[in-house]
Amino acid sequence: MTDWQRNSVAGPVGRPARELLSRSRLEAFSDGVFAIAITLLVLDLTVGAAAHRHLLRALLDLWPTYLAYVTSFFMIGIVWMGHHVIVSISTRIDRRLLKINLALLFVVAFLPFPTRLLAEFIRDSPAERVAAVFYGLWLLLISVALAGMWRYTSGKRRLLPDDFSQDQVDYMTRLFEPNIALFVFAIVLALILPQVAAALYLLIATLGFIRTA
Amino acid sequence: MTDWQRNSVAGPVGRPARELLSRSRLEAFSDGVFAIAITLLVLDLTVGAAAHRHLLRALLDLWPTYLAYVTSFFMIGIVWMGHHVIVSISTRIDRRLLKINLALLFVVAFLPFPTRLLAEFIRDSPAERVAAVFYGLWLLLISVALAGMWRYTSGKRRLLPDDFSQDQVDYMTRLFEPNIALFVFAIVLALILPQVAAALYLLIATLGFIRTA
Amino acid sequence: MTDWQRNSVAGPVGRPARELLSRSRLEAFSDGVFAIAITLLVLDLTVGAAAHRHLLRALLDLWPTYLAYVTSFFMIGIVWMGHHVIVSISTRIDRRLLKINLALLFVVAFLPFPTRLLAEFIRDSPAERVAAVFYGLWLLLISVALAGMWRYTSGKRRLLPDDFSQDQVDYMTRLFEPNIALFVFAIVLALILPQVAAALYLLIATLGFIRTA
Amino acid sequence: MTDWQRNSVAGPVGRPARELLSRSRLEAFSDGVFAIAITLLVLDLTVGAAAHRHLLRALLDLWPTYLAYVTSFFMIGIVWMGHHVIVSISTRIDRRLLKINLALLFVVAFLPFPTRLLAEFIRDSPAERVAAVFYGLWLLLISVALAGMWRYTSGKRRLLPDDFSQDQVDYMTRLFEPNIALFVFAIVLALILPQVAAALYLLIATLGFIRTA
Repeated sequence: MTDWQRNSVAGPVGRPARELLSRSRLEAFSDGVFAIAITLLVLDLTVGAAAHRHLLRALLDLWPTYLAYVTSFFMIGIVWMGHHVIVSISTRIDRRLLKINLALLFVVAFLPFPTRLLAEFIRDSPAERVAAVFYGLWLLLISVALAGMWRYTSGKRRLLPDDFSQDQVDYMTRLFEPNIALFVFAIVLALILPQVAAALYLLIATLGFIRTA
Repeated sequence: MTDWQRNSVAGPVGRPARELLSRSRLEAFSDGVFAIAITLLVLDLTVGAAAHRHLLRALLDLWPTYLAYVTSFFMIGIVWMGHHVIVSISTRIDRRLLKINLALLFVVAFLPFPTRLLAEFIRDSPAERVAAVFYGLWLLLISVALAGMWRYTSGKRRLLPDDFSQDQVDYMTRLFEPNIALFVFAIVLALILPQVAAALYLLIATLGFIRTA
Repeated sequence: MTDWQRNSVAGPVGRPARELLSRSRLEAFSDGVFAIAITLLVLDLTVGAAAHRHLLRALLDLWPTYLAYVTSFFMIGIVWMGHHVIVSISTRIDRRLLKINLALLFVVAFLPFPTRLLAEFIRDSPAERVAAVFYGLWLLLISVALAGMWRYTSGKRRLLPDDFSQDQVDYMTRLFEPNIALFVFAIVLALILPQVAAALYLLIATLGFIRTA
Repeated sequence: MTDWQRNSVAGPVGRPARELLSRSRLEAFSDGVFAIAITLLVLDLTVGAAAHRHLLRALLDLWPTYLAYVTSFFMIGIVWMGHHVIVSISTRIDRRLLKINLALLFVVAFLPFPTRLLAEFIRDSPAERVAAVFYGLWLLLISVALAGMWRYTSGKRRLLPDDFSQDQVDYMTRLFEPNIALFVFAIVLALILPQVAAALYLLIATLGFIRTA
């Protein structure tokens, strides 16, 4: 048995390229992207040289950056855990799951950008409204991508093993389904009170993390 | 049996250094480079502090950056999938495959540079012509490197397992062979209408991604 | 047996999401964060273009940066080794270990920020006091997080295998328990003699590394 | 048998922490550092916005950056291959090998800094002398660290499997032993003709790469 056969997942004959994606490389690549996205966030933590007279003050003034940093850190943590659960449950990796996975990686890899905007503009009217709405929309997008990955896996029990009970499916569905109403509320709030919305984002990410972990 | 024997691939006796490269480390290292290259792209997404008065406008004005970002993201996604297929099919990792692999990693790891140039200069005549041609040439180079890796693997069935049918080989060859004419057309177009060429690059990457995934 | 069952760890029935986190992905993700955090440190090593007249001098003047770089490098090295030992000993990965692990990744991924501050402000009174205290507090926090991970694993022999003797537990506990008194001394010292404290941090990290490795 | 026992390497009883480092995590962590160091190099490829009038010219003027980039890329490629061979041959990972490994990671992770200096100052007298000497010394240091790792592994056949013949050992020793005389020549040359020395570094890295791969 070649390595290829051992690693690959079964699939219809005659379309080789589509059946060769092994679980392990999908995980390795995805974990790489998650780990890098979560660690790159720290690059935006900086204090200008001008701050040297009042460094303590400057560090305290960075609170929006810390807030955005922590929120995004938890968010990526949630996605990492959810991704792991979905991939490890799936009986095989098919074409569509792969595409959904790439879409998920895309929105996660992009997150440092809205994070940076939120950190930089949160106390800067009127830019803070734009930054807070953009950040909220992006969190929603990530949640939807993760839920979509689960929906595809569990829909019609497509990629589920036989011994995975309906109770387990329902439990997971509740876990992954984003609270759209809450997100919409937070994003609308960002138009009126961007700083309060930013705090709410942190709360959503923290609660989601506690619920998932 | 030592770990080394389990992980390594067979080869002619007496040239130990050349036979010890295991598939798993080749994959891990390559996946690392792909994941980092794809995630580093986000570092170039920035908005100057001066944008705070019209942040929404500034975000919309970043469209060339988004376009370059998405094109490069898809391109690296294509290479990751193709690389995985080739490595998992190969019966062993030989010296030359290793070198071609390093060359492929080289052109992929370099991609963030032309991406940055395209994003920065696309609306800036005459620099946009140079940036768009350079970017197109680099996409072509990456496609050629990936196709070269497949050609080496499949040529004379060099590294293919016995149960890999000629039909499968032909299917893969069609998949990996870059459409040179299309690339040349896009690059020539970049000399005349750089922005249209940039849109065409995105189209090529998107279609390539859909075809491969 | 599906991949999921092979990789996952046993746990109480009915809470599937919590039992699916495999050791291998926990390791891969954590290793990714450690490797990136340790390698990102080099991005802060720069010499302004103005230094071209006296580059040798400028390079020597960077000593605080080297000092901070080496200290943080060793510190992450210690955490990587300790993390590996704890995870490989544990009989299973449970919910709480996962959370402690994320907390540990959080403080490690954040370390480049205090490192940068220490490097930038160490010879700049009064900012150097703030930077040196902040850095010391962060090292303490990392040590506490690592010790907490071990305490959770070993407490009431919660996640220990049966054949792990009490002697081994005691040995590990001595290894992981941070010398709080020494850290407090160094942090207080940072208020008075920040540069001496920075040298002491390096000493602590070096000795910790030698002891662990 | 627990996971710990399966992954860990044998060692003297009673010093548990020192025997728990598995080959796979050592490889994963090291591969992460190599992949990141090799990919971060691209971050230093930039063209100022002022270049927009003569972008082609500006791109051609970047030749010292390309030269430094390629040299460092090959150098890290050599180390990755050598590291892989040594780790996969070793019958076990002991304390000292681990320390030498960390030292090797340290010098590799630091390489982007001398690379950046070489790229920035190579045409800037007198800074170019300093930059070229520093870069050459660092390449030598990396080569020595890799050779040291092999020497420790092969010395007194310490970590070699029984079926590894003396011929194979000799072959590997020739492969890993750096040409100290050549390095010293190049570094002395850097004092007189820094640009020629930079070209020689590229030659050394390229030849080393061809020889190793």
